[in-house]
Amino acid sequence: MRNRWAGAGDETQDSMKIGPQTQHSSAISSSNERVILVRGKDLCAELIGHVSFTDHIWLLITGELPSAGQCAVLDATLVAIAEHGLVPSVQASRLTLAAAPEALQGAVAAGVLGCGSVILGAAEQSGRLLADVVARTAAAKGTPAAAGATGSGSAAAFTAASAAALDEIALERVREERAARRPVAGYGHPLHKQSDPRVQRLLDIAEQAGCSGRHIQAARAVERALPAVIGKPLAMNVSAAIAAVLLDAGYPLLALKGVPILARTASLIAHLLEEQHRPIGFVLSHAAASAIDYDGPAPAGFVPGDH
Amino acid sequence: MRNRWAGAGDETQDSMKIGPQTQHSSAISSSNERVILVRGKDLCAELIGHVSFTDHIWLLITGELPSAGQCAVLDATLVAIAEHGLVPSVQASRLTLAAAPEALQGAVAAGVLGCGSVILGAAEQSGRLLADVVARTAAAKGTPAAAGATGSGSAAAFTAASAAALDEIALERVREERAARRPVAGYGHPLHKQSDPRVQRLLDIAEQAGCSGRHIQAARAVERALPAVIGKPLAMNVSAAIAAVLLDAGYPLLALKGVPILARTASLIAHLLEEQHRPIGFVLSHAAASAIDYDGPAPAGFVPGDH
Amino acid sequence: MRNRWAGAGDETQDSMKIGPQTQHSSAISSSNERVILVRGKDLCAELIGHVSFTDHIWLLITGELPSAGQCAVLDATLVAIAEHGLVPSVQASRLTLAAAPEALQGAVAAGVLGCGSVILGAAEQSGRLLADVVARTAAAKGTPAAAGATGSGSAAAFTAASAAALDEIALERVREERAARRPVAGYGHPLHKQSDPRVQRLLDIAEQAGCSGRHIQAARAVERALPAVIGKPLAMNVSAAIAAVLLDAGYPLLALKGVPILARTASLIAHLLEEQHRPIGFVLSHAAASAIDYDGPAPAGFVPGDH
Amino acid sequence: MRNRWAGAGDETQDSMKIGPQTQHSSAISSSNERVILVRGKDLCAELIGHVSFTDHIWLLITGELPSAGQCAVLDATLVAIAEHGLVPSVQASRLTLAAAPEALQGAVAAGVLGCGSVILGAAEQSGRLLADVVARTAAAKGTPAAAGATGSGSAAAFTAASAAALDEIALERVREERAARRPVAGYGHPLHKQSDPRVQRLLDIAEQAGCSGRHIQAARAVERALPAVIGKPLAMNVSAAIAAVLLDAGYPLLALKGVPILARTASLIAHLLEEQHRPIGFVLSHAAASAIDYDGPAPAGFVPGDH
Repeated sequence: MRNRWAGAGDETQDSMKIGPQTQHSSAISSSNERVILVRGKDLCAELIGHVSFTDHIWLLITGELPSAGQCAVLDATLVAIAEHGLVPSVQASRLTLAAAPEALQGAVAAGVLGCGSVILGAAEQSGRLLADVVARTAAAKGTPAAAGATGSGSAAAFTAASAAALDEIALERVREERAARRPVAGYGHPLHKQSDPRVQRLLDIAEQAGCSGRHIQAARAVERALPAVIGKPLAMNVSAAIAAVLLDAGYPLLALKGVPILARTASLIAHLLEEQHRPIGFVLSHAAASAIDYDGPAPAGFVPGDH
Repeated sequence: MRNRWAGAGDETQDSMKIGPQTQHSSAISSSNERVILVRGKDLCAELIGHVSFTDHIWLLITGELPSAGQCAVLDATLVAIAEHGLVPSVQASRLTLAAAPEALQGAVAAGVLGCGSVILGAAEQSGRLLADVVARTAAAKGTPAAAGATGSGSAAAFTAASAAALDEIALERVREERAARRPVAGYGHPLHKQSDPRVQRLLDIAEQAGCSGRHIQAARAVERALPAVIGKPLAMNVSAAIAAVLLDAGYPLLALKGVPILARTASLIAHLLEEQHRPIGFVLSHAAASAIDYDGPAPAGFVPGDH
Repeated sequence: MRNRWAGAGDETQDSMKIGPQTQHSSAISSSNERVILVRGKDLCAELIGHVSFTDHIWLLITGELPSAGQCAVLDATLVAIAEHGLVPSVQASRLTLAAAPEALQGAVAAGVLGCGSVILGAAEQSGRLLADVVARTAAAKGTPAAAGATGSGSAAAFTAASAAALDEIALERVREERAARRPVAGYGHPLHKQSDPRVQRLLDIAEQAGCSGRHIQAARAVERALPAVIGKPLAMNVSAAIAAVLLDAGYPLLALKGVPILARTASLIAHLLEEQHRPIGFVLSHAAASAIDYDGPAPAGFVPGDH
Repeated sequence: MRNRWAGAGDETQDSMKIGPQTQHSSAISSSNERVILVRGKDLCAELIGHVSFTDHIWLLITGELPSAGQCAVLDATLVAIAEHGLVPSVQASRLTLAAAPEALQGAVAAGVLGCGSVILGAAEQSGRLLADVVARTAAAKGTPAAAGATGSGSAAAFTAASAAALDEIALERVREERAARRPVAGYGHPLHKQSDPRVQRLLDIAEQAGCSGRHIQAARAVERALPAVIGKPLAMNVSAAIAAVLLDAGYPLLALKGVPILARTASLIAHLLEEQHRPIGFVLSHAAASAIDYDGPAPAGFVPGDH
């Protein structure tokens, strides 16, 4: 029984996506009976006991160990986004453990699934926006666009001469989002309306780490552009800050969403340990259900139970 | 501890998406100690033993029991898409059960997660395309656009007079997809290159059920338009056929992806039962890993193990 | 790069579980360019348009098309367990869609993960208990134990002579569960305390379908045994009824959990369609979080926000 | 519409599990518009930029910042278990991204679901075994059992006088597992047969960190006991080592599974970034499917396609 490389019925002509994949290599890990290599390093001799988990995350994702500054920035973003109370992903996770205590991994997975485009996962969309603003500004000024767009680091900030171009392009980009009726990813917060306290802290750490550059400039430019387009100020939130500082530190754009996912996983484990000792899963569920009315059809005289 | 309606950091100003939700009702189910209502019907007195699971699916999703024709079309699509061998979603599911036999639901979930935009989940994208072609054609002819666009059924086919407009709009729409470098969802299949045998069968059943209408016409029009745009014929696949027959039968567009998900879930349960009796999970895993080379850095003399 | 058949570090000496798997076959499906076989039948010529989804589920899982009675019993169980309001799995699913609307399959998966041993997934545990009672009773009477234990159907009920043995063994089995401090899976319901209205309905349908046999007798025997052991009556709930009628119909024990999973998936799709039209995800989340107090340490004067 | 605290049908009389939960507090986090508290600390003023991600993980899970030794041990375990090539969980994740590239979080979740009792998740079972051996030994010697059993740290090792009792109890415990036909969790590895290179490294780090104690002694005692029971030596694997060093460091038993889950999540993000740049998902799938034969019924003359 051989398989097709695409599935039970809905495939496409786009060979880039599901055509026959001709490369069949991976560069992350190899091993034999005595040695485990991770990114070319001997796991036992060079990594365990020598590097922190944060170093190791950077190594796994980029193939290189981070500088001290890069590690500081990654640590700061992971600490910043890990925990913010009983948010939807945490609730989904605790509800799932209450129903299925035999599978902690299932409850973690249910929480991870809530790292989406609306909540928690906006760092990636925000990063795309910022990378685009940086690339267009660089192109406008004759600087190689790739530097900003690939997220390969840009400690070199835009000069004052570029600043006007940056503001113009940020404004243009915000107008495009508005015209397409898309939210400007990374701005505004329902609780932290004036300013999200995590934002300035992350930008300061990037500054101290010597990693502050074009993406942070772009993030501020977008923030300045917003009032003219939407009619009121809208503060940068932690997702835009995470995207900006990580891209300036050279972290890859297409792995940005991994940071909130990984950070939240740590928080989920804490919540699931608490759920085992002091369960609230069914309290959450009862309160949630009690907030909703049934407005469908019912036979005359039907009275919903007060469960 | 109160919650914000949006999460740990990345929110947006788009009030449609995460603004304070002012409605707090659901119309699907209610109950008291003696009666369970589903869509207004008494589950025990009117549904169990009186309707088939397919009837019940339609009732749950649309709020109404289906006609015989609608039920026949839904049955046909669910049967058509349930199983097609050891496709990626089935493999992910069997690998997961091999690693975590304590949680059958986790293995099912891993398989469901593979119902994505590239494989298996294309029915929804295809449905959006077809609904758009129908709506534009109807608008072009002065027919109320809503009829086609809402998926509320359109047994009334386009007349011969509209046929020319339909072909023009299909061509225009395919060109738009091409210009945006998007695949035309629902066309082409890596195995069933000449024609997917399920397609004609589904269209015939829609015809017999009296449900064949504008979306099927649109699906054929897109198929006719493709060669001129991409330089070769590309046959309608089962995803476009599912979308077309269900939309013509009045099934809602935004629940289209539910059909492959539900059908595949049935298949996953069969595979997971087989995995318990005749496990192949680690055989799959070993064969897959053996197909990939390591091309990252390694110390001189390192020889990967033949695991 | 070859793979080991077991993973990153925690393996076991139990060759049954992760030893080298020597069989490498599957009997569910095969295909070529023109024909798709499912359980040996031509999908397009023999199944699509000829069988219902419920028939197809039975065929996928057992390898044989069901009798009319078997199909009626499977339909009844799927209809019975699909929907019961805003239960934890539905809430987890709607919360997940609110956070990540780009992935309907992720929201379905989050709901499926809540089909666990405490809620919704108890049919399997209940089935194991009933199969065990049947097997012991059959063994005690010299009847071949396999008939009951394998779930291969047992329309032939225990005779009056066996009834006394059945009651004794049920009592013994309930005592064992109690001694091991395990709940007796399939009995008791927080809402339907006197009796779960779905239970009698399912048993009646099994009777009508000619499928009522030993497992249903065992389920009633356990219900009769409970008051003496736990000091009060505890009514059979829908999970025990599902297990009993399906095992009597010849449905396999190790796929029992698939029935609530599949039925709930149908319900989740209905809820996720409603969530797209009339979102309540953030209302659920806000109400749930508001029910919980923070009782950890806080600086003097800290006042939690009323989010 | 109120909810019951338990779901659609299968509930239990066990009030510990799903009875009305009377406590409704959480001690992990609180916030207002200006301050976010995590475990009582001001996230922006005291944590971001001040602690590493590993410190933060320990804080989230235990409520206290770790000592340097505790942090070193947690770092070492996370680094040790993160990556070991194209194991089943990584394959499931890459297959899922290939099928559903729109939802990175779905692909991560599919990988997390493979952290089960057979692969990757064995640290918890191993921890239960070791904690049990420690508790019984402590009880046998009149030492307070709780010290070892709760994982609250036990830098104080068993004395030489206790060593004989430890060996006896380890042997007894291994015999119990064998009698119950359970694998001895944490021993044996299909690739690293002689010894898993990560094991000694982790034990050395615990020693250096001043955290080596009773659980490590217990792990070695179990290793010594195995040959007499199963007839051959079986080396401690990384799961037992992780459990032993973490329990000795005071990490909670019920969160042990979180360590491989969190570590693997980091690895999954690296693999999913690679999958976006150098896809192998369909190569994996094709190779896996090609390893399996169809042995179900087929019409005369049917030839499976070479997909």
